[in-house]
Amino acid sequence: MSGLREYEFRVESRDVDFRRQATIMALGDYILHTAGTDADRNGVGVRDLNAGHGSSWVLTRMAMEVRRMPAEHELLRIRTWVSEVTRIMTTRNFHVYDSIGEPLASAVTNWAMINISSRRPMDLSLLDDYQKITQDIPCPIEKPSKLESPGGKHSYGHTVLYSDIDFNCHANSMKYLQWVVDTLPMEMLRKKIFRRVDINFIRESLHGQRLSIITDFPDGNLYEIRDEESRPVCRISFEME
Amino acid sequence: MSGLREYEFRVESRDVDFRRQATIMALGDYILHTAGTDADRNGVGVRDLNAGHGSSWVLTRMAMEVRRMPAEHELLRIRTWVSEVTRIMTTRNFHVYDSIGEPLASAVTNWAMINISSRRPMDLSLLDDYQKITQDIPCPIEKPSKLESPGGKHSYGHTVLYSDIDFNCHANSMKYLQWVVDTLPMEMLRKKIFRRVDINFIRESLHGQRLSIITDFPDGNLYEIRDEESRPVCRISFEME
Repeated sequence: MSGLREYEFRVESRDVDFRRQATIMALGDYILHTAGTDADRNGVGVRDLNAGHGSSWVLTRMAMEVRRMPAEHELLRIRTWVSEVTRIMTTRNFHVYDSIGEPLASAVTNWAMINISSRRPMDLSLLDDYQKITQDIPCPIEKPSKLESPGGKHSYGHTVLYSDIDFNCHANSMKYLQWVVDTLPMEMLRKKIFRRVDINFIRESLHGQRLSIITDFPDGNLYEIRDEESRPVCRISFEME
Repeated sequence: MSGLREYEFRVESRDVDFRRQATIMALGDYILHTAGTDADRNGVGVRDLNAGHGSSWVLTRMAMEVRRMPAEHELLRIRTWVSEVTRIMTTRNFHVYDSIGEPLASAVTNWAMINISSRRPMDLSLLDDYQKITQDIPCPIEKPSKLESPGGKHSYGHTVLYSDIDFNCHANSMKYLQWVVDTLPMEMLRKKIFRRVDINFIRESLHGQRLSIITDFPDGNLYEIRDEESRPVCRISFEME
């Protein structure tokens, strides 16, 4: 029922960019896949929540810090644990190591439980014994920041496509990050790596929605993705080096 | 050095669509990943070709036929073999099975070898003993068709993004299919599955290129992706049911 567990990944060819390193989206995918698998093993996976409570997990915030981006074919180990649970939110942490145990990255994620019909938040104390899976190990990096709206100067458009949508029928978490990264100058993606990324997931976005991506880049590093009614859907900030 | 080998995959959450079934692009990714891994084991993987011949594999044509789309979390087995080699082209085949051995899909792929600097085709007879890895087993489905240009009526645009580009520095093979599938009506993607897909890869496309997707759909099922000079980059046809 409990534990600090470790999962292995091999960086696949489809997960690397032109530098033959994992993209930041792929690293995020491995981390979220680890979260899903570990929740399954704890009996609180998406399928357990669907069946037992008519509920599902929703990722609300995420922060990743990267020391080195893993290369194509490289073996990764991701260690994960739940550190905290309140009535409305739970925190899951991650350390990513290479095959010889050198740290590559760390991440902190915040999750809420929602009713799958009403999409409203549910009380996490409904999950019996969930408290027991928490580990008294501190967060590996600073918690995900609450991001502000950028004093937006530049704007990009994106229509939510079939390939953006996941099993929850909304845009997949890592797609928001992809849309933002895809706006960055190639020169920057060639020379730098993402040292830290913060993401706030605010609203769901559905197939066919026309989103705007507003940013103060290159003066700042803050992005807001807005729906057709100019409501924030997601905010992202990053540091590159 | 030789053989008919089998590889296992688990359908990951990031690979499924809103129906919780693998997307046709994900199925293609598993198939191409199998090709890469098996070529590595035969000593003719991309890294071997880079190091030994300054060359790389290029996928020129692909056909997939699907009986059943695998579901999220499902275990797949992909059996692969090389059936043919000429001086300019080699054919690799695939059968995809579910965990109890029921056939899910089959695929045939054609590959050329190119010089990584000049991007020109190279003679496959340069690969010592390559002939020995071929198996005298027929193609599982009809070979990939040579596709014609559609009498194009409808047109969509796509600019090649950072996330479209792979380790070869050109758009990843399955991205062409994704751009086409993303233009299809959601109603069709909800009710039908792809029974057969044919793809002809004609030119590479690079970051920042503005491509046009021309199609005779819904009258026909033929797509042509063109570069800024209206040259064909890729042609795709599909049957859905």
